Amino acid sequence: MSDFFTLKYKTGSLIILDQTQLPEKIVYLRLNDYQVVIDAIKQLKIRGAPYIGIAGAYGLVLASIKNPARAYLINAADRIKSARPTAVNLSWAIERMLLIINNQHLSESNLNKTLLSEAKKIEKQETENSYRIGKTGARLIKNNMTIMTICNSGRLAAPGFGTALSVIYTAHKQGKKINVYVLETRPLLQGARLTAFELCNAKIPYTLITDNMMATAMKKVDLVLVGADRIARNGDTANKIGTLTSAITANYFQVPFYVVAPTSTIDLSKKTGKEIIIEERDKNEILRINNKYIAPPKSNAFNPAFDVTPHKLIAGIITEKGIIYPPYNKTVKNIINDNV
Amino acid sequence: MSDFFTLKYKTGSLIILDQTQLPEKIVYLRLNDYQVVIDAIKQLKIRGAPYIGIAGAYGLVLASIKNPARAYLINAADRIKSARPTAVNLSWAIERMLLIINNQHLSESNLNKTLLSEAKKIEKQETENSYRIGKTGARLIKNNMTIMTICNSGRLAAPGFGTALSVIYTAHKQGKKINVYVLETRPLLQGARLTAFELCNAKIPYTLITDNMMATAMKKVDLVLVGADRIARNGDTANKIGTLTSAITANYFQVPFYVVAPTSTIDLSKKTGKEIIIEERDKNEILRINNKYIAPPKSNAFNPAFDVTPHKLIAGIITEKGIIYPPYNKTVKNIINDNV
Repeated sequence: MSDFFTLKYKTGSLIILDQTQLPEKIVYLRLNDYQVVIDAIKQLKIRGAPYIGIAGAYGLVLASIKNPARAYLINAADRIKSARPTAVNLSWAIERMLLIINNQHLSESNLNKTLLSEAKKIEKQETENSYRIGKTGARLIKNNMTIMTICNSGRLAAPGFGTALSVIYTAHKQGKKINVYVLETRPLLQGARLTAFELCNAKIPYTLITDNMMATAMKKVDLVLVGADRIARNGDTANKIGTLTSAITANYFQVPFYVVAPTSTIDLSKKTGKEIIIEERDKNEILRINNKYIAPPKSNAFNPAFDVTPHKLIAGIITEKGIIYPPYNKTVKNIINDNV
Repeated sequence: MSDFFTLKYKTGSLIILDQTQLPEKIVYLRLNDYQVVIDAIKQLKIRGAPYIGIAGAYGLVLASIKNPARAYLINAADRIKSARPTAVNLSWAIERMLLIINNQHLSESNLNKTLLSEAKKIEKQETENSYRIGKTGARLIKNNMTIMTICNSGRLAAPGFGTALSVIYTAHKQGKKINVYVLETRPLLQGARLTAFELCNAKIPYTLITDNMMATAMKKVDLVLVGADRIARNGDTANKIGTLTSAITANYFQVPFYVVAPTSTIDLSKKTGKEIIIEERDKNEILRINNKYIAPPKSNAFNPAFDVTPHKLIAGIITEKGIIYPPYNKTVKNIINDNV
C-alpha cells in the first residue's frame, strides 16, 4: 500500500483524495470551484471536522479567483458554511476568512492573496495542533494497551496525524505496543473503510469489529479515544453516530473515555449539547449498501449522522493545549482563553 | 408482498425459505438429506434458535429415510448437533430424537415413523409456545409504546409468530398502536433483511436504524424485547451479538429489557453465562458486504456471533409458561419444573 495525502492546495486547485472510494481505489480529485468543494463536503468525499474547515477556507480562495467582489465572496461563504451543520470547524474557518473579506482596508485585488495566506495559516495551525495533540495524548498510552476508536479521526480527517488517531500514531512511533479495536461505524463505514486503511498503511495492529460488538470487545479495552465535531461549553460532545453508545458501554465497564480534538472544535456559544444541531442524512444510506437494498425499499429509517455524549461520560478532552478534565463548565472556557 | 412460510416437512423433504436471499428474493429450497440440512443451518439459510432445533429434528427424519440403522442415525445426530454450538434448542431437539433412536423396543423399520411423529410434535409444541409467549408478553405492551428489538426473533426464527416478535404481532393484533425500532444487526443484517421484511409484510410500523444508533433511539424507547439462544440457570442469556450492548444502553436510560424465549432455550446444565460456548464465525462476514470488501482485505477482524447478557440487566424472561423475574437462580429452575 502506497502512502497518500488527503488534501493539497496547488495553484488555483484544491486536490483531494476521494474518501468515498476508499479503501478500494485511491482517486484524487481536482476541485476548481467553491461549489464543487461544497458538493465534495456534502458527499463526504472530504470529511473530518478539521479538514472540512480547511476545505471550506480553500473553497473561498477558489471563489476569490473566479470573482474577488466582496458580495460574491460573502454569498459563497454563507453557502459553504451551511454545507454540513454539525462540525463547528467549518463555520470557525469561514468566520476567520470573513474577517479578511470584510476588512475594508484590503482592496479586492489583494483579497485572493490574503485569503490564500489565511487558508494556509489555518492548515498549518491545524497540522501543528495535530502533532501537539498526539504528544499530549500519548502520555496516557502505556505499553500493551488496547484502544477502541470509532469512525475516522486520523490523517483523512485532519492534517498531520489527525486527532484521536494522532495519539495512536504518536504512541506507535514512540515504540509502544498497542492494539486498536476499530468500530466499523455504520452506515458509511468510515471505521472499516478509512481507519482500517490508515492503520493497515501504518502497520499498527488493529482488529475490525461491527459496532454492536462494542460491549464484547470493551471487556479487553483500556481506553476509548474518539474525535469530535463540536464541543459545547459544558463539555457535551457531538461526534459521529455511535459515539454515545460507545461512551455508555465504556462507562458500564469503567473504561476511560476520552475526546480528542483541537480547540477549534470547541463552540463556547453552545451552553450544552442540547443546542447542537444534529445533521440527519438520507435514509438510503441505511437501506442500501453498495447500491443494493439490504431491507425492504419502502422501510422507514432514521439516519442521524451524529450524537451527543454528555460530559459526565467523558474522562478528559485532549487538545493541543493540554488535557482538560472536569468540571468542564470551567475548564472548557479557560482553555480557549489559555488559562489552563 | 406475498405471505411466506419458513419451514415445512412434506413427504420425505424439508422445504425451507432460504433466508440468505431475503428480502430481495423469496426462494424455497427442498432438502432431502440430513447433510444438506446441516449445511443450511451452518450457512444460516435456516436460523433462529427454535427453528434450528426443528430443522435438526427433521434432519434426523430425512436420515432415517436413507438408512434406519441406529449406528447411522446416532452418527447423524452427533453431526447435526454440532452444526452450530450456541443455541441450545438444537441439542435439546436432537436429544429428544435420540431417546427414540436409542429405544430398543422400537424396531428399525418403525424408527422413521416414530421420528417423524416426534419432529412434528416438537414443531407443534414450539408453535403453541410461540402463541402463548405472544399472549403473555403482550400484557406488557401498552398503546403507543415504542419497542426496540435486535436480529430476528419472528416467524423466520420460530414457528407461529416467533418469540420476541410474537409479543409484537400479538399486541398489534390486539389493536395496540406500536412502533418498533429495528436494529439492523451487523454483520449479517438479520434486523434489516428479516425483521424489517416481516414487519413490512405485517404492516406493523417500524423504523430501521444502524446498531450504533441504539443510544440515540433508546431515549424514545419504552421496552426492549430480544430473543435468546441459550439461557443459563442464573438467567444469563446468550443471544445475537449486539444484545449485550443494547442491554447496557437500555440500562443506562432505565428502559426495561426483556428476554423472550420458550423454555426449550433454557439450559440448566449451565450455571452461568460464562459456561456458554460462543460461536466465532468467518472474519469475511465482517470484511465483506455483498461480496465486496469494505476494509483492507488483510485486516484482522473478530466475529463472535453471540454475546452473553448478564442476568442483572434483564428485567424479565417471557416464556410460554409465564414471565419470570429475579431472583433467576430460583425462578429459572422452577419454571422448568413447572413451579412458577
